[in-house]
Amino acid sequence: MPKLNENFFDLEKNYLFINIAKKVKAFTAAHPEADIIRMGIGDVTLPIAQCVVDAMKKGADEMAVKETFRGYEDSGAGYDFLREAVSGYYKSFGADVPARDIRINDGAKADCGNIVDIFGEDNVVLVTDPAYPVYVDTNVMAGRKVIYADSNEDNGFAAMPDYGVKCDLIYLCSPNNPTGSAYTAEQLKVWIDYANKNNAVIIYDAAYEAFITEEDIPRSIYTVPGARECAIEMCSLSKTAGFTGMRCGYTVVPSELVVKNSRGEDVRVADLWGRRQGSKFNGVSYPVQCAAAAVFTPEGLRQTGENIAYYKANARLIARTFDEIGIKYTGGVNSPYIWFKCPWGMGSWEFFDLLLEKAWVVGTPGAGFGKNGEGWFRLTAFGDRDRTAEAMERFRKLIKEH
Amino acid sequence: MPKLNENFFDLEKNYLFINIAKKVKAFTAAHPEADIIRMGIGDVTLPIAQCVVDAMKKGADEMAVKETFRGYEDSGAGYDFLREAVSGYYKSFGADVPARDIRINDGAKADCGNIVDIFGEDNVVLVTDPAYPVYVDTNVMAGRKVIYADSNEDNGFAAMPDYGVKCDLIYLCSPNNPTGSAYTAEQLKVWIDYANKNNAVIIYDAAYEAFITEEDIPRSIYTVPGARECAIEMCSLSKTAGFTGMRCGYTVVPSELVVKNSRGEDVRVADLWGRRQGSKFNGVSYPVQCAAAAVFTPEGLRQTGENIAYYKANARLIARTFDEIGIKYTGGVNSPYIWFKCPWGMGSWEFFDLLLEKAWVVGTPGAGFGKNGEGWFRLTAFGDRDRTAEAMERFRKLIKEH
Repeated sequence: MPKLNENFFDLEKNYLFINIAKKVKAFTAAHPEADIIRMGIGDVTLPIAQCVVDAMKKGADEMAVKETFRGYEDSGAGYDFLREAVSGYYKSFGADVPARDIRINDGAKADCGNIVDIFGEDNVVLVTDPAYPVYVDTNVMAGRKVIYADSNEDNGFAAMPDYGVKCDLIYLCSPNNPTGSAYTAEQLKVWIDYANKNNAVIIYDAAYEAFITEEDIPRSIYTVPGARECAIEMCSLSKTAGFTGMRCGYTVVPSELVVKNSRGEDVRVADLWGRRQGSKFNGVSYPVQCAAAAVFTPEGLRQTGENIAYYKANARLIARTFDEIGIKYTGGVNSPYIWFKCPWGMGSWEFFDLLLEKAWVVGTPGAGFGKNGEGWFRLTAFGDRDRTAEAMERFRKLIKEH
Repeated sequence: MPKLNENFFDLEKNYLFINIAKKVKAFTAAHPEADIIRMGIGDVTLPIAQCVVDAMKKGADEMAVKETFRGYEDSGAGYDFLREAVSGYYKSFGADVPARDIRINDGAKADCGNIVDIFGEDNVVLVTDPAYPVYVDTNVMAGRKVIYADSNEDNGFAAMPDYGVKCDLIYLCSPNNPTGSAYTAEQLKVWIDYANKNNAVIIYDAAYEAFITEEDIPRSIYTVPGARECAIEMCSLSKTAGFTGMRCGYTVVPSELVVKNSRGEDVRVADLWGRRQGSKFNGVSYPVQCAAAAVFTPEGLRQTGENIAYYKANARLIARTFDEIGIKYTGGVNSPYIWFKCPWGMGSWEFFDLLLEKAWVVGTPGAGFGKNGEGWFRLTAFGDRDRTAEAMERFRKLIKEH
């Protein structure tokens, strides 16, 4: 009789989006006239840039011709043309990431889960709270102890390390999902020093880096000294170029990242990661890699940049409205997320109900992202401009009249 | 200091293809005039069917238009249009596999590795020897004990269960890589009865099912009674439709497959698998799923069927030659692989050298797939017809003259 991985039974059932769907369904059934505006989901809505789609179609055409057909990728790490393009992209904002340190994947979520394979069970994992649930879930599945660093109103939802706390793996996400806060270079340096001092490894989720505009906010942890010795970075084209349905990202494991094994020998983490991927992954679809490479061309960056600018203008609209009506928030500047304090001291779910019933706007209760999310709420800027503006009008009215 | 997953250090370094590449490189450097024919690699060479590429391009075009753009897939299990298409494909050869039991993936290798996540460490894993190295490697990485069932000349390289051996997970691959042998329905029934009797779970790799022509060889384990209670099946479009560079496959976990947890409660394996995938996977690229669905249309099956017929004719050519020159082999009928006994009692690597030096043909030494592979050799039928014919002429000459 096979023994199951019973760590799965320790996973908390995440009812967040299921509960939201249920509540919205019940409300629309009772109020079919309600013109609901959805600002809850973290998915993009604008189409893929034309030059990116054209590159995918060209790649697809090559697959139909014997001379240009591509089968298995030799390494499964991604084609050189794409790894070089990613390396060049890093260079454009001051991060020195050689192509050999980059492995292409089918999205950051997968590698975020897969990376746990190369570490042993008995590691203490530090996750900031609130956080993207995948960090916790994938480590609970692996039977690891998860501890939390508080992101809260006092620290601007940017948790900082506590030298009294010992841990082995640290998950950081900046700009943060769900709070929209972003670490400065100075703050990241504190984390890097803490990690190097404690021989901990940082797993850095940079999925929202393309939304950064402020000068002192790093686009990559590798722009900060000391990171190549302690940090793995994951990024994705999902938010950069609308690839949520195209599926392509990349993981960087620097060659300098070395961990001692139980015999005291140095092991290059990149070697273990390569072995893991070599046994359990066969590379990303060639036409998808062609599309991804097109994102990093000047024309690709221009076209995808327009979409990001559109979302960022939505975020500014929300932020400006909240400034005007006196709602406290983080995010909205270097991020597509606005994370705000529920008015009138309401709880997250209480405010969810009110917002749905009175303003016909759907958002995400912060409580769904961890204990420090209670009393907070997430809106996303991925929607339509006019609908976002309409939602903000309804917010004004709600705050005024309630 | 993070603890590494030290099970990785128990992995045998697989030098098979590295050694082959080294030897070929050295030989061609010394003999630049040598016209090498490569029959070693398990990759397809014919281009993707036009109607499949057209479907991908149509999917890509939809991504460029706001109204038809697709972001995250809701479930990550695959779009219904593709799951239904796979279900219909199963029905076409008599397997009842409802769409709800099917999850779409980016290739069988990934899921073959990922499925280990849902089982605990203390399972005994039975693998037939010789075998595709991924079955062993992914379980060694998870710290599991691997035992072997011998596939050898005596049983036609079709290992059968031994009721004296207890195990929890069983890996079967039919038609087999590397041996090309395929289980009959009767043989599979013996494995299924053994698994059900011992409460073991079979992980069945059907990657080569599209090469089956003989009536009594099942295209799916689910055509055999009792399989839905004990078997997970993985399949891929890599060999069916030349998707080695496109990346799409599917895994079936039947709803009837139930395993008891340590508290004696029934757990549906499909639920654990869904939870694993929900946390670590975000679905397959939409245009790739469009391409995959096109494979299962009448026109797609016709066009991809032509490619398979081409490879199968190559396999027949090799088999006929071996029949004529008296080389003993398995495969070549329901499989793109021909697995033969090295002439003159030679070892696998000894014959590799001879074949390279005297006939300028590169194949794969069977010893690379497990201990029972020693003295055997694999050729693949994925090459060009004329080159395959030329290689066979060289074989005849080698056997005659050596």
